Parts: sequence; C-alpha cells; structure tokens
Amino acid sequence: MHDDGFHVYDTTLRDGAQQEGLNLSVADKIAIARHLDDLGVGFIEGGWPGANPKDTEFFRHARTELDLKHAQLAAFGATRRAGAKAADDPLVAALRESGAPVVTLVAKSHDRHVELALRTTLEENLAMIRDTVSHLRTEGQRVFLDAEHFFDGYRSNPAYALEVVRTAAEAGADVVALCDTNGGMLPDELADVVAAVAEAGARLGVHCHDDSGCAVANTLAAVSAGVTHVQGCANGYGERSGNANLFTVVGNLQLKRGYDLGVRLGEMTRVAHAVSEVTNVAPSSQQPYVGTSAFAHKAGLHASAVKVDPMLYQHIDPELVGNDMRMLISSMAGRASVELKGRELGYELSGEKAKQVVGRVKELEASGYTFEAADASFELLLREEVEGARTRFFTVESWRTIVERRTDGTLMSEATVKLNAKGERIVATGEGNGPVNALDRALRLALERIYPELSALELVDYKVRILEGTHGTEARTRVLIESSDSTGEWGTVGVQDDVIAASWDALEESVTYCLLRAGHTPA
Amino acid sequence: MHDDGFHVYDTTLRDGAQQEGLNLSVADKIAIARHLDDLGVGFIEGGWPGANPKDTEFFRHARTELDLKHAQLAAFGATRRAGAKAADDPLVAALRESGAPVVTLVAKSHDRHVELALRTTLEENLAMIRDTVSHLRTEGQRVFLDAEHFFDGYRSNPAYALEVVRTAAEAGADVVALCDTNGGMLPDELADVVAAVAEAGARLGVHCHDDSGCAVANTLAAVSAGVTHVQGCANGYGERSGNANLFTVVGNLQLKRGYDLGVRLGEMTRVAHAVSEVTNVAPSSQQPYVGTSAFAHKAGLHASAVKVDPMLYQHIDPELVGNDMRMLISSMAGRASVELKGRELGYELSGEKAKQVVGRVKELEASGYTFEAADASFELLLREEVEGARTRFFTVESWRTIVERRTDGTLMSEATVKLNAKGERIVATGEGNGPVNALDRALRLALERIYPELSALELVDYKVRILEGTHGTEARTRVLIESSDSTGEWGTVGVQDDVIAASWDALEESVTYCLLRAGHTPA
Repeated sequence: MHDDGFHVYDTTLRDGAQQEGLNLSVADKIAIARHLDDLGVGFIEGGWPGANPKDTEFFRHARTELDLKHAQLAAFGATRRAGAKAADDPLVAALRESGAPVVTLVAKSHDRHVELALRTTLEENLAMIRDTVSHLRTEGQRVFLDAEHFFDGYRSNPAYALEVVRTAAEAGADVVALCDTNGGMLPDELADVVAAVAEAGARLGVHCHDDSGCAVANTLAAVSAGVTHVQGCANGYGERSGNANLFTVVGNLQLKRGYDLGVRLGEMTRVAHAVSEVTNVAPSSQQPYVGTSAFAHKAGLHASAVKVDPMLYQHIDPELVGNDMRMLISSMAGRASVELKGRELGYELSGEKAKQVVGRVKELEASGYTFEAADASFELLLREEVEGARTRFFTVESWRTIVERRTDGTLMSEATVKLNAKGERIVATGEGNGPVNALDRALRLALERIYPELSALELVDYKVRILEGTHGTEARTRVLIESSDSTGEWGTVGVQDDVIAASWDALEESVTYCLLRAGHTPA
Repeated sequence: MHDDGFHVYDTTLRDGAQQEGLNLSVADKIAIARHLDDLGVGFIEGGWPGANPKDTEFFRHARTELDLKHAQLAAFGATRRAGAKAADDPLVAALRESGAPVVTLVAKSHDRHVELALRTTLEENLAMIRDTVSHLRTEGQRVFLDAEHFFDGYRSNPAYALEVVRTAAEAGADVVALCDTNGGMLPDELADVVAAVAEAGARLGVHCHDDSGCAVANTLAAVSAGVTHVQGCANGYGERSGNANLFTVVGNLQLKRGYDLGVRLGEMTRVAHAVSEVTNVAPSSQQPYVGTSAFAHKAGLHASAVKVDPMLYQHIDPELVGNDMRMLISSMAGRASVELKGRELGYELSGEKAKQVVGRVKELEASGYTFEAADASFELLLREEVEGARTRFFTVESWRTIVERRTDGTLMSEATVKLNAKGERIVATGEGNGPVNALDRALRLALERIYPELSALELVDYKVRILEGTHGTEARTRVLIESSDSTGEWGTVGVQDDVIAASWDALEESVTYCLLRAGHTPA
C-alpha cells in the first residue's frame, strides 16, 4: 500500500464511463481495475452500487476476483435523501454493503443547485452531509466528499460553499474534492479559489473536466495551491470533453514537479493501450506521454538535430513512460531520419545505403506514397534495399473482383485470387460486403491452410485518399491499411490509379508483413 | 481587416501539417485557408516557400485564387545561412517572392541548439537574425520572429535568449513569438519567463505544443503575462501531441477573458468540421467547444437538472460556438438553420416541414451521413420532403463492375449500367482506371445522348471515410464526391457497407443534381 501523503484517485469506472459511446461490462471493469492497480494508482472508484445494478455486481465480484496489490476500491454515492436518516437510506446501505474500504459521497455545494435540482433548503443539505459522513465513518468506512459544482458555487455564494467543506471535514470526511463539474474553469481563478478554501482546514482534492481544454493545467494549479488528492480518468475518458487525463497529470507531477506518487510510469504507455483495448475506444495517437505520435518526429529540420541529441527535441526521455521515439519517414525527412528509422528496425545502414533508401522514398512519395502511417511498407522497402530482393511468401498470378447491384436491388461482391505458394498453385474465391473485403477473404482463404497464423490477422482501419484534386475518379488513389494480430499493429500503403488495385497492394504487403512477423522464411 | 491590437495567428497549413498521417495538397491548403478566413483569424501561415515545392506552389496559387476577406497570409522561413548575406540567400529570396505581406522567420534562441544543430557561433546567429529581419523589412514585408525552443533556451542561458528577442525587435520584427517547441512547459514557469522577457521591450507572441497537455493553458498564461499574439492550429493539429488548439484558445479568450478578437465563434463548430473533412482526419468528438460530444449529456444525475436549467450543467451556451446541446448532431440539424438553408435554396418551409427535415437529417447522420460537405444531397433531400417524391431523371435497373489484374499484370476496370430514361431502356458499358471511374463513364455514356449537358460534368474530388475503426474493410463506408460544371461546384454523399455502392449513390445524386441545375424537369 502506498502512503497516504498524496492521493492518485482514478474514476475511469464511474465518471469515465459517462463518455458517449463507452459502455463497460462488469468483466471490463474488473480488467481495467487490474491494469490501473498494476500501474500503481492509489484509489479506484468502481461505480455507484445501489443506483446502478451493474455497479452493485461489480463490487460483489471485486471482493473475490480483484486482488488489488496497491490500490483501494472506492464506492461512489450520494448523501442521504432530504428529511430521512442516513442509517435508514437504502442507497447509503448499498454503500456500506459494497465492501469498499472507501466511500466517496457526492454533495451539492452550489446554492442554486441545492434549491433548483435537489429542491431542499441550504440547511438541510448541510445536515445531509453531516449525517451521511458521520454514519459511514461510524460503520467503519473511510469517507471522501466530492463537492459538486464547487467553483461555480463559490462564485455564487462563497460562504455557503465554504460551509459545505467545513461541515464535511468536521463530520469526519478525510478529503473534500472540489469539483469543476462543468469543466469551465481556467487555472488562475481555480487556484485562487483553492487557496481561499484551504483556510477551511480540510484536506482538499480536485476533480476537473476538460471543457475549456484546461483539465490537466487546472489540476496542476490546484496542487500548487495545496491540494493533495487528484482525480482523473485513464486516457481522459469522460462525459462531454472528458475528465482530466490521469496519465498526463501523473506524468507531469512525477517528471516535472518531483512528486513520488508510486505510479510505475514505465508501464504507463502499455497500460494506456491495454485500457483502450478493453473500452474499445480507439486511442488518441496525440495523447501526451503515451500516444503513438507523442514522440514521433516528422520535420526534416528536426531529424538531423535529433540525431545529434534526441533530447534537443523531446521534453522527456520517452522510455520513462514506456514509450518510444519514432522517426516518421516523409519527403521532409533526410538521410538522418532514415538511418535512425533503420536502427529502430534493427538494420545498420551504411551512408551509401541510407542515401539510396532516401532516393527510393522521395521517388515513391513524389508518385503518391506516404510511409508515415505505413511502417510495415517502409520496412519491406528497407529489406528490399538491404537484401537486394523483395520479401515474398507467395506469388500472385491474377485476381478479379466483381460488384453488382442486381435488378432486385441486392448487392453482391465477389473476388477470385490465383497464386502460388510453397510450390502449390491455389485458386480461391471469397465473397464480402465490398470488393476489398472480398479480395481480403479470397487471399486469406488461399493462404490460411499453409500459413495458419493468418487467422489472427485483422484489418483495423482502411483509408482512401485521392491524390490530385482536379481529376476526380481518374486521379491516383492511395490506400492505407492498418492491420493487427494478437501482438501488435502495422500499416501498409498502396498507390495506383485504381482504388481496388491500390487496396490489393496494401493488402498483399500486410499479409507479407504478418508472415514476416510470424518468423517465416521468405520463399 | 481586423485591427492589429491582438493577433490570432493560425499555423495549420505549416506546423499543423507536421501531424502524423496528415498530408495536404495545394488544393487542400487553399480550401482550409478559405475556412479559416471565413472564421475570422488574423493571420494564416501558408507554409515554407523555397524549402518545400508544394508550399512555393501554394503561395503562387494563393495570389490569384485566394481572395481573403479578413486574414493576411504569412510565409514561414528561416534566417539566412551562416556566413552569407540575406540579400544573396535563395531561401530568403523565396520568402520575398512569395508575395505574402508577412514573413515569419524561425530563429534559434537556445544556445545549445545554435552550437549543436545550427553549428555556428552565438554571435553569428544574432547577425543572421539582424540581417534577415532588416533585409525583409527594407524590401517591404512585415516580419514576425518565431524564437524556437525559447523556454528551454531561457533556462539554459537567459541572457542569450533575451538578446535574441532584443536583436529581432531592434532589427524591425513586429512580433517575437516565444516558442515552446518541444511542448514540455507548464503554465506557471512559462508565465514567469514571459513576464521576465516583457522587459526586453518587444511585442511578444506565444507558440505552444501540447506534450504536457497544457498547450491551451500555457497560451492563456502567456496572454495574462502580456503576450498579444497567439499561435495555434485548427483542431489542435500538429506534430507529436499537437499544437495549441486555436479554437479552444479563441473560445476561452473571447468567452471567458472578454477579448474581442473578431473571430466569428458562431461559425466555429462548422469550420472545425469542414476543416477535418479536408484533412480527412477524423474529428475528436471530445474536442472542447466544437466536438460533437462537447455538450452531450449522458449522466442520469444531470439529465433532470438540465431540464430545469441547461446552464446548471454547461460552462457556456453551446449556440455561442455554433454547437448544440446533446442529440442535435449537426450544425445544420437545428430547425432554424434548416429553415434558413431552405430559404437560401428557394423553399419556404413551414415549421412542421422543417421539423420533419431535421428528423430525416438526424436519422441519416446517425447512420453515417454528413451533409456539411454535401450541399447537393441535402437539397435533394429537402426537395423530396417538400414535393413528396424523390427528384428523378432516370431509373436504374442494375449495374455491375469488374476489376481484374490479369496474368500478364495488366489491370482492367469495366462497368455496365442498365437504366430507363425518357421512356427508353438503355444499356451502356464503360471502361475506366478503376471501378468508380468505369461506373461514372457507363452512367454518362447511357445518358449523354438524352442530356448533352452531362458532358460538362466533372468529378473534382472523391473522398472515402470508413466510419467504424474496428472492423477494417467490413465497416460502413462514406463517400463524398465533389462535382463541377462550367458554372459551379456541388457535393454529394453516399453511405453503404460497400465502397462501390456508396460511390454509386453519390455519383447518381451528382448526375441528378447536375440535370436539376441545367433546368430539366424531373421525369
């Protein structure tokens, strides 16, 4: 267990799950909690037992299935209803029965919200806080309080907002987290309010949303003003523009502010991607610290300097957060970036060879290729230059695809592929919901018997770009395909006048690269 | 032209284009510049003429094709080479010849970068700045200076960093923009440095990157410390974690800091999405202010309170930035905008009719359509609702397309279309360099004898987007087609599982719209 000096409090499973399009099963929640525990966060808010059956179930499963090494579970819930007793409130009972060592109570701290949304008196709201906090404390749970809409509330009625903080602290809440619930604050005003509230004598926390694009900066400003408990979500998940990205907050605090929060930063990139596999939300490549682009360099101006000293162009060493520097191969890139990229892939290139590769890349880019998002195509090109021959596991004789809308309105897509592999001639036909899908199926059908690992190959993304804006469908077409197997992802590119032929080229390279990764020896 | 008191400086076309996977053609750059001008930014940095042939071409085209109402173009470039004269430097000449009223020079301000990356002396670097700035000023251009790696430079050698600012200002630079090139700064330290530099007497600007997740907050902190020129990119595009998101910065400054920057915030959501259609980078739904989720409410706790008073749960009124609360998916889908658009197209819509159209648009958008870049498809939909029937000049019986790569390596694309027009049944076959091109030719071949004006129809652009990122080629596909005839341009959209079927739908609508424009009466 980490010491109690500074709290890293994750609310991915509760507030993060409010993100549009994000839906977590109980099993998903268990899986994410394990990843976060592994990373080393101090608290994991699991949901609202009693209010949400799925969350009740989560806490039930957690007791037996979740063997947390580091984090403590927190159950989220509201203060008791107006005019009742906490001891008799069924929702408060669900919090007691959750088995979570910590309960985080949300309470109103904005006078208008008490009156308009809660429809009770300011005095009764304070009584609800006092009663619920002290009841749960007596029953043996640790209590934190989320003061909802605190900053807007402080603007509206500072005395009352302060009274909420004092009441919670006096009743035994260990932390009062000040919430910027609608995410509209900017750092300087937020810091001023935190500093003013610090006088109330409670231990303070902060909970920020990103509606002004300042959630991370607001969290840091609150820490500078005295807060010792920060809330946030993995990958910045959350309603509207999201919650404070806990990974960015923790990276900044540990690497730039000198806090030792017990978070294993070296695991952060891995955990960020593992969590996004569970949520099935495509990870942002731009995400600070952990995004795939976070340390990717494109400008040729930079590449030569990066070769001299990478730290000239990076704010931190990417290894500290488990990420890698990547050189993007583009027409703006020179020999230096090709040498660096070659080294990254395990090829030591002579100056002459590197120059040759740069020449090929420039020539191909002039005809419409781009290798930035097609690392696998670049590696195949590099291998060809180094080894003097193209890597091939099969040779294609011909292919054909037909798309038809019949008189009755039904659509049909079909493809036939003829190829040779390991001395065998194979003909296969596939159907699909589109010509590329049909070609993909035919190609794999032809090869899967010989190369069973192709069954793990998945096309993750498919992008088409027309390259000249003046000729419409007669222009050159670039297709980028993003593929994955159980252990990683890679991109390939095809450029042809014809979108289908371009797709075929990218498909063929994707399959070739998949077999290369699997350790096969080229024919 | 906006007054010179505060600069909103966009660098999407230069620094934004450094984003991984983002590649802009000259036509793309022109289109984006028009959108940004329409929004009301003060300066648009177009690229680096001389260093990048595409950018040289952009400035050449801009002179005749880009009639900016509001913004001024800026050409980006470096100070002259060491040991030469600015007047003799071919790259400096390219800046002069760009025709841009403003030149933004990048210069080193970090002593280590001067020595290690530029490989010259600190004194010569100052001479390069002095000479290049005063040369361009003498030649009649306004000069801004980007002081690269300024904040790290200030940490390393504050006296030298300050000397760079002073030198540039004395030589005649109107703005010295302090750049957090590697994006590692946090707001408080950055503000301290800006305040210290303010003494140098130059007008200051700021250029931030988001590697610490603080680009927006850093920009605001710099403004509080005295900066009157902010740089950023549309949608936060940029290398690694991106540049400061100009939309978020401007939203915060105008709505929360009381600046009148001349930006038409009501257009911001529309422009943000229009730009992402051009870049073909999927827009982030979480983006502050302009994201589709930015005002989308999911929490049950919130829903009832939102009903009482939406402003209890929103930091601003979404209409201020052209966005909508929840569900009102597109900027066009509001009833008022449908009524306005109808009037623009010559249809007087009743409230009931407008509501019906909004319903159709929402339903179609939920299944993947977008009408922002498909005005012709929207008009056909509007006509259908008003007139009770689809506008048709022909009815299609069936179509089929075949793409084949033969054993000899040659590619063949062929399409056959069967349709009825003016009581005639017509069968036509076309060949093309791709299935869509072949379908386009077959369709026109079938119709051109009856409707000769189709010979003027040209497909100007063709864009494909896959809508779900998880199934690769099996996902839903959206095709946008931009068409023109001798008198104008229009866009159509098709959405289907199959890329060819989606293309067909967009093609068929394009041809229909062309005939409608030509004054034909539907069959």
